[in-house]
Amino acid sequence: MKPSIVWQTDFSLTWGAVNTMRGVVKQIDSELECFDITHDIEQFNVLAASRELAFVVPFWPKGTVFVSVVDPGVGTKRKACVAKLKDGNYVITPDNGTLTHVYYETGIEEVREIDTTINRYKGTEDVSVFHGRDIFAYTAARLASGIISFEEVGPAYPVSEIIIEDYKYVKATVTSINIKGIVISVLDPFGSIVFNILTKDFIKIGYNHGDVVHVKISHNDKVYFEEDVPYEKSFGYVDLNKPVLFNSSSNYISIGLNQNSFRDTYHIKEGKDWVVELSK
Amino acid sequence: MKPSIVWQTDFSLTWGAVNTMRGVVKQIDSELECFDITHDIEQFNVLAASRELAFVVPFWPKGTVFVSVVDPGVGTKRKACVAKLKDGNYVITPDNGTLTHVYYETGIEEVREIDTTINRYKGTEDVSVFHGRDIFAYTAARLASGIISFEEVGPAYPVSEIIIEDYKYVKATVTSINIKGIVISVLDPFGSIVFNILTKDFIKIGYNHGDVVHVKISHNDKVYFEEDVPYEKSFGYVDLNKPVLFNSSSNYISIGLNQNSFRDTYHIKEGKDWVVELSK
Amino acid sequence: MKPSIVWQTDFSLTWGAVNTMRGVVKQIDSELECFDITHDIEQFNVLAASRELAFVVPFWPKGTVFVSVVDPGVGTKRKACVAKLKDGNYVITPDNGTLTHVYYETGIEEVREIDTTINRYKGTEDVSVFHGRDIFAYTAARLASGIISFEEVGPAYPVSEIIIEDYKYVKATVTSINIKGIVISVLDPFGSIVFNILTKDFIKIGYNHGDVVHVKISHNDKVYFEEDVPYEKSFGYVDLNKPVLFNSSSNYISIGLNQNSFRDTYHIKEGKDWVVELSK
Repeated sequence: MKPSIVWQTDFSLTWGAVNTMRGVVKQIDSELECFDITHDIEQFNVLAASRELAFVVPFWPKGTVFVSVVDPGVGTKRKACVAKLKDGNYVITPDNGTLTHVYYETGIEEVREIDTTINRYKGTEDVSVFHGRDIFAYTAARLASGIISFEEVGPAYPVSEIIIEDYKYVKATVTSINIKGIVISVLDPFGSIVFNILTKDFIKIGYNHGDVVHVKISHNDKVYFEEDVPYEKSFGYVDLNKPVLFNSSSNYISIGLNQNSFRDTYHIKEGKDWVVELSK
Repeated sequence: MKPSIVWQTDFSLTWGAVNTMRGVVKQIDSELECFDITHDIEQFNVLAASRELAFVVPFWPKGTVFVSVVDPGVGTKRKACVAKLKDGNYVITPDNGTLTHVYYETGIEEVREIDTTINRYKGTEDVSVFHGRDIFAYTAARLASGIISFEEVGPAYPVSEIIIEDYKYVKATVTSINIKGIVISVLDPFGSIVFNILTKDFIKIGYNHGDVVHVKISHNDKVYFEEDVPYEKSFGYVDLNKPVLFNSSSNYISIGLNQNSFRDTYHIKEGKDWVVELSK
Repeated sequence: MKPSIVWQTDFSLTWGAVNTMRGVVKQIDSELECFDITHDIEQFNVLAASRELAFVVPFWPKGTVFVSVVDPGVGTKRKACVAKLKDGNYVITPDNGTLTHVYYETGIEEVREIDTTINRYKGTEDVSVFHGRDIFAYTAARLASGIISFEEVGPAYPVSEIIIEDYKYVKATVTSINIKGIVISVLDPFGSIVFNILTKDFIKIGYNHGDVVHVKISHNDKVYFEEDVPYEKSFGYVDLNKPVLFNSSSNYISIGLNQNSFRDTYHIKEGKDWVVELSK
């Protein structure tokens, strides 16, 4: 069985763009299977792409070829690359910050710049705005199919040269029961928000289900939420519309409302200026 | 050929949640194929999930494994179950009302509670908010793959204990040419609405294409629509923006406007208080 | 390997309609693979369907079976047909204008009306509003599977009788450096708009990357945009929010803003009354 190709973009599925990438894959090897993470990454938001990629990678068989195309610099000098992760998976992406989370969470063993003089869908030389199809899909299919080896992608370059965003976007330093972190995601369609606090760090420091946790969320000194919130397994342990702190499916600590949107109710956004403080 | 796994959730495809369920399946058996009903079921609306499931089940080969995850009670004491339908299909779902329509329309032969001490994706024991991935996808893949039998899902419990919503949501009693029913669905993106009146009952009682039918739709004694409407095969038999009564693709009687939205034009909603009366 | 079936509709994926078409395919031949162009074609917009189809066709292996269902006349006398293109692909669609772009861009070798007395999913005879499932999906699966030949679809009729929209929607006549065309698409989610000016015509007439082009877009004598715009390879060659003319991925000339929506900023729509004039 050949490895799956797993895709995400900010192209949306409202037109045929993603479909042409599938067609290119099928032309190269009709046995290859494609799967979608999402095509609704916020446009040009490479950090959102980075986070979503790292969320799904652990759930796929080793050897999977991930393709992420959030690419505001398409057609310019930014590198198109293939990263080989330390867990045996591959990520094909513009080198523009998309590799940040897998760099920290999985580790990158080696990275190669795609030699687009070889690895490019023929007949598209006049188009410079759709590398997702003409370079990334083409290269992904040939790599997954075994037509080219990882070495044949193009020349290696130092992992230290990969564009990586600031680590504080990824993981808070947790050393005491008083934790300070940031909001790293508000994209859950149910409206729960995610902090950069790993579940395992939160448990190790001494929090247990049943605890009541003081939660304060602020932005530039304005407090958006401050309450004592139960830390429970799931939403159903609190009343409708009440807040609950829980272990998210992405292994970070989250806060939500039972059957309502925490994000919309309290107008929370994400980013390094959205600070959360947790204490007992 | 192994049975397909056919999915619906209220998770949306705007993030990677559904994708991680696919990855779990591929880890268990790379030959399994997955298909989506929709991931845009209204959040927490188990009756909508129930109806949509019953709509698609008849069109799939027998033995298909359906997975429905609209699960406001995730992580609480509500049962996770696998129902074996009388037509040979399986439905994996929280036991929360989602089985209502297939119970009435297809029949349930046997139901088993998932033993989550065995049937759970390893390493997710600390997460209680994503049974869709950690329990339902895992169990679906192992059942479809033949790794576990239906019996190995977990202990059987009486079909009579399954949570079933009120039958009047499902099917009107049709005994005369004057029919009283309710609006059961307004989710058609074209804006047609569906009554709980089976096409076959409507025909049996004596309605024929070409008839003009008096249609009255009201909510708490307020009349939202009352007109004589032709009963035709399709939209194109009436002028643009004109109402037409027709046999829907889900085998219930529907009303719509030709190339316009009946739902939005007349502000119709669904539920037992949205009453329709049909007469000649 | 059997040919893929590649789908587009205006049904959306918010309900189970598309899924039932998949189920019908799987019942006929479980080996068939299905792919989506989009299910968010603007409702009833057959010209948008026509254009999107022609955009993706070149990227799929020859022999692919395309199914397009934008079908305001479903259930009426309009023909259901299968067109064999000159490149060896098939298109299954209502004959309502959807074949316009492939007629001009690929060419149609032969067309046959679907004999729905034979090619119809059994048990759906009472439903006239869902030919996408009951006739098109059923016929596509049997054709792709080899159960029926192209000849067994139904009787041939003259290609000249196919409903084809006005050619000026497709391609401008380019004979001098001063080009007059129209806006043919504003559906790019990034907000770039597409003119009916082929990239190869634009280059042949003497435009080169690096040129500054005078661009005027007007509607009924009202000017919506008039500026000197650089013709570059991609967005990244101009400053944020600045306009750029470029070769689109569909092989027509486009204009967009770097990381902003040209369509929304300048309130541009598509159609034969939205005129663009290009000059040096």
